[in-house]
Amino acid sequence: MKIAVDAMGGDNAPASVVEGILKTRDEFQDMEFILFGKLNQVKPLVKDSTRISFVQADEEIVMNDEPVKAIRRKKNSSLVLAAKAVKEGEADALFSCGNTGALLAAGLLLIGRIKGVQRPGLLSTLPVVSASQGGFNLLDSGANADNKPEYLYQFALMGKYYAQSVRGIENPRIGLLNNGTEPHKGSKLTQTAYQLISADKSLNFVGNVESRDLTNGVCDVAVADGFTGNAVLKAIEGTASSVMHLIKDSVKDANLFAKLGALMFKPSLMGIKERINPARYGGAVLLGVKAPVVKAHGSSDAQTVYYTMKQIKTIIDGDLLAKFEETFHQEKHEDQ
Amino acid sequence: MKIAVDAMGGDNAPASVVEGILKTRDEFQDMEFILFGKLNQVKPLVKDSTRISFVQADEEIVMNDEPVKAIRRKKNSSLVLAAKAVKEGEADALFSCGNTGALLAAGLLLIGRIKGVQRPGLLSTLPVVSASQGGFNLLDSGANADNKPEYLYQFALMGKYYAQSVRGIENPRIGLLNNGTEPHKGSKLTQTAYQLISADKSLNFVGNVESRDLTNGVCDVAVADGFTGNAVLKAIEGTASSVMHLIKDSVKDANLFAKLGALMFKPSLMGIKERINPARYGGAVLLGVKAPVVKAHGSSDAQTVYYTMKQIKTIIDGDLLAKFEETFHQEKHEDQ
Repeated sequence: MKIAVDAMGGDNAPASVVEGILKTRDEFQDMEFILFGKLNQVKPLVKDSTRISFVQADEEIVMNDEPVKAIRRKKNSSLVLAAKAVKEGEADALFSCGNTGALLAAGLLLIGRIKGVQRPGLLSTLPVVSASQGGFNLLDSGANADNKPEYLYQFALMGKYYAQSVRGIENPRIGLLNNGTEPHKGSKLTQTAYQLISADKSLNFVGNVESRDLTNGVCDVAVADGFTGNAVLKAIEGTASSVMHLIKDSVKDANLFAKLGALMFKPSLMGIKERINPARYGGAVLLGVKAPVVKAHGSSDAQTVYYTMKQIKTIIDGDLLAKFEETFHQEKHEDQ
Repeated sequence: MKIAVDAMGGDNAPASVVEGILKTRDEFQDMEFILFGKLNQVKPLVKDSTRISFVQADEEIVMNDEPVKAIRRKKNSSLVLAAKAVKEGEADALFSCGNTGALLAAGLLLIGRIKGVQRPGLLSTLPVVSASQGGFNLLDSGANADNKPEYLYQFALMGKYYAQSVRGIENPRIGLLNNGTEPHKGSKLTQTAYQLISADKSLNFVGNVESRDLTNGVCDVAVADGFTGNAVLKAIEGTASSVMHLIKDSVKDANLFAKLGALMFKPSLMGIKERINPARYGGAVLLGVKAPVVKAHGSSDAQTVYYTMKQIKTIIDGDLLAKFEETFHQEKHEDQ
């Protein structure tokens, strides 16, 4: 398999991106990479170019570029060239740590939807309290601000196949993010989505779930409209980070005795910080487009890039997209 | 001022409710209370009934009652009788720790909207990292699942007056909860709401805010549709609780040395737990109805009931509702 890599996206690019790619390349003999970027910066970082090729990109899409405009105008950017390589079948997946909106736009406009998928959705993986569960998937976590019930139903199907194929959960518990657990609860959107999802007996639907129970592991896949999903994702990340921040501050303000205690307890606290580090759970995946489009955090280090590459490999090895094509082509057919 | 109290609502009712009321009564000579509930349970808890009266309520609305049905059918419930007392001018505010949906329904259907207010909104107060800011207000945090841009604009106005009058913030920073900070971002709903809010120069509008920055204190009042606001509120509460839970678990799993450290550091951790305890920030207030309707957490203890009573006193002392009437009656006039 061959991965098209936007080597210029992210706070630590291209160094961390390239370092993560090299580590992945050394471990997996069946993986090849095309690095898109400013080659005077990228090439010196690669001593051994086994299974790595390079494409010069004169432009870069930066964080405050307006996504759709950037995709249309910066035709020689590392992201656009990488996306085009995927579109033209030269690579099997697209990876970037850069501008999320631009990556989504590249996925939607350049790579394109799978036939039958109404709206691709962004799937994120987030931590839960129980270490054995590993995490939960939230989708849509930000691709679609305005939604129809049918989109949410398709997110439930895509989330199920992802959890099965990539996370190895045989019969993933699907929850619908709502403002109460009772079946009648919610907005017009979630009330209708509830009907659609619960009517599909192939889904292990556990009903409505509330955002306060997500980190407690109430479901394996939480289905949400992309506006609410994005807000919940960022609320979870922000709150976790704020609590860790409060702990850090409280050490500063503590007396010597408590400071010493904090020092002795520090390894446990660092373990928790690592447990709730979103980067640890891999990248966000745009599901429903014709190839895996994967976004890692802007602040990703080489280790996170490596984790995310393993995630992409699992997606491709599990043939997730074939499953989508089969499901949604068929659905389209039934509609007619 | 006289407060109508649903003495039967909440996990620890009527004991904690009554205890909190007695503490408030002893401190504030200008406060009177009517306790609605099963008097064979309530009366024995009150030794000194100075400025306290009682009304027998044969029924109770419980947590899993369907709100609107419960309000219509359980006409002799403590909540319905208390709401009717407010409606008939026998009391100035309504308080309950019980079923939130039923309390909202009682506020909307029995007490009624202020003329000119399109939809009342539920205002919650949540913690921020910086101790000096004290917290931020989120509204609507759950009264309206389906929204129009005009509702959000009115939430901005109500939130401003609340922050001024109750929290003493002269020129509160109003943010619009959105999925990005740029003005063009968001759903159709938030894009239009942005236009309406930014056009009102009487508001100190700081633009779009993301949920990850709320606990960092990015604004004093975050305006949201009630569906997203509810999801964000519960995500913040759930995540804060999950992180504290992880810390507790990590102590159990730690070696003796780290356990000792945790013990020495415990007072600081307990301080953080208290800082992020939502109950500490008072009750949720339904704004836009003809009297303050205030909900404290179901798990409220006497201290929380006492805090929430002080909050109600501040709302009444600050004449917040007169401000709403003036603003929204006038707006109505301008519309015509």
